[in-house]
Amino acid sequence: MASWKQLLQAAMDSHAHLKHSSFIQLATLGTNGRPANRTVVFSDRIRIHTDSRSCKIEEIKHCPFGEICWYFTESWEQFRINGKIEIIDKSTTDAIKVEQRKKSWQTISGKSRFQYLAPAPRSPYKEEPGIDYELDPSAGPLDAFSLLILEPDQVDYINLKSDERWIFTLRMSDTDKIWMPERVNP
Amino acid sequence: MASWKQLLQAAMDSHAHLKHSSFIQLATLGTNGRPANRTVVFSDRIRIHTDSRSCKIEEIKHCPFGEICWYFTESWEQFRINGKIEIIDKSTTDAIKVEQRKKSWQTISGKSRFQYLAPAPRSPYKEEPGIDYELDPSAGPLDAFSLLILEPDQVDYINLKSDERWIFTLRMSDTDKIWMPERVNP
Repeated sequence: MASWKQLLQAAMDSHAHLKHSSFIQLATLGTNGRPANRTVVFSDRIRIHTDSRSCKIEEIKHCPFGEICWYFTESWEQFRINGKIEIIDKSTTDAIKVEQRKKSWQTISGKSRFQYLAPAPRSPYKEEPGIDYELDPSAGPLDAFSLLILEPDQVDYINLKSDERWIFTLRMSDTDKIWMPERVNP
Repeated sequence: MASWKQLLQAAMDSHAHLKHSSFIQLATLGTNGRPANRTVVFSDRIRIHTDSRSCKIEEIKHCPFGEICWYFTESWEQFRINGKIEIIDKSTTDAIKVEQRKKSWQTISGKSRFQYLAPAPRSPYKEEPGIDYELDPSAGPLDAFSLLILEPDQVDYINLKSDERWIFTLRMSDTDKIWMPERVNP
């Protein structure tokens, strides 16, 4: 059996022509105790760019686990990727992570950058004249720019064409990380 | 502002040519306390057909709230529909609900019916010779057939083309149910 990463890469490659194929659903636990679920855009290595003022940041601080559901519309494959979510934001001090946040900022478009200057997500809307901001393209990330990194520890893969389902579970020993595949009934 | 039901109906109509447009993501709270998320098929009125042996049944019994995330790939609209989930299964005694379950069973294909005879979802896979079952098409639902009904109490709508976001909240009084729309920042 291929590893889940190989399966995911193959599914991504075969859907590369569909813009929506990088849209995935991230479920977290709401601070009210209810599940919350929204579409986010996948970027390299299960990183997600988000606004530090959005509800999901507070939710993740409260319960740091999440499950991504990724359905591929042409190959009929679904990946449910469960793991712990790390938040890298302006308060992060670890040098490597600070660098990761900077690099992620550089990959996003000018238009996407502006959203981090906009009023806080979900705050009441007021009609306001558009303001012309100038953003220095070489400057570092805006304060509201956060990076979420999901570290998978279980992947539930199902192929609805072949009717095969595999659960991949990360086993940690003192020295090793091993992914254990188990074939289960769909 | 149109009601969220009108918005949803319009999005469904404009995507009716895309089979995958009825695939939605349902987040629940796992019995381990972590969010769980999977693709399910929308049928009329936020009803979901499922196997009573699947994990989500146990999860919903534990925490009866869920959030559906429904993204429309062509109109760039997302609906996050949050509410309480009711399970209608073979133990249900209420006559109206028993009838709903029967009617839902009648709407599903012969092939879909067979899955409720298959080994329990997520049980270890064993290679077995295919068994030829005969199912009486006029017979009632198999034991494993369950119906989930999500009763929405909040809908978070976002249109990424017009950059508009509306939160619709159900307010209950002694005599009335009213959906209150509020425009918020995206």
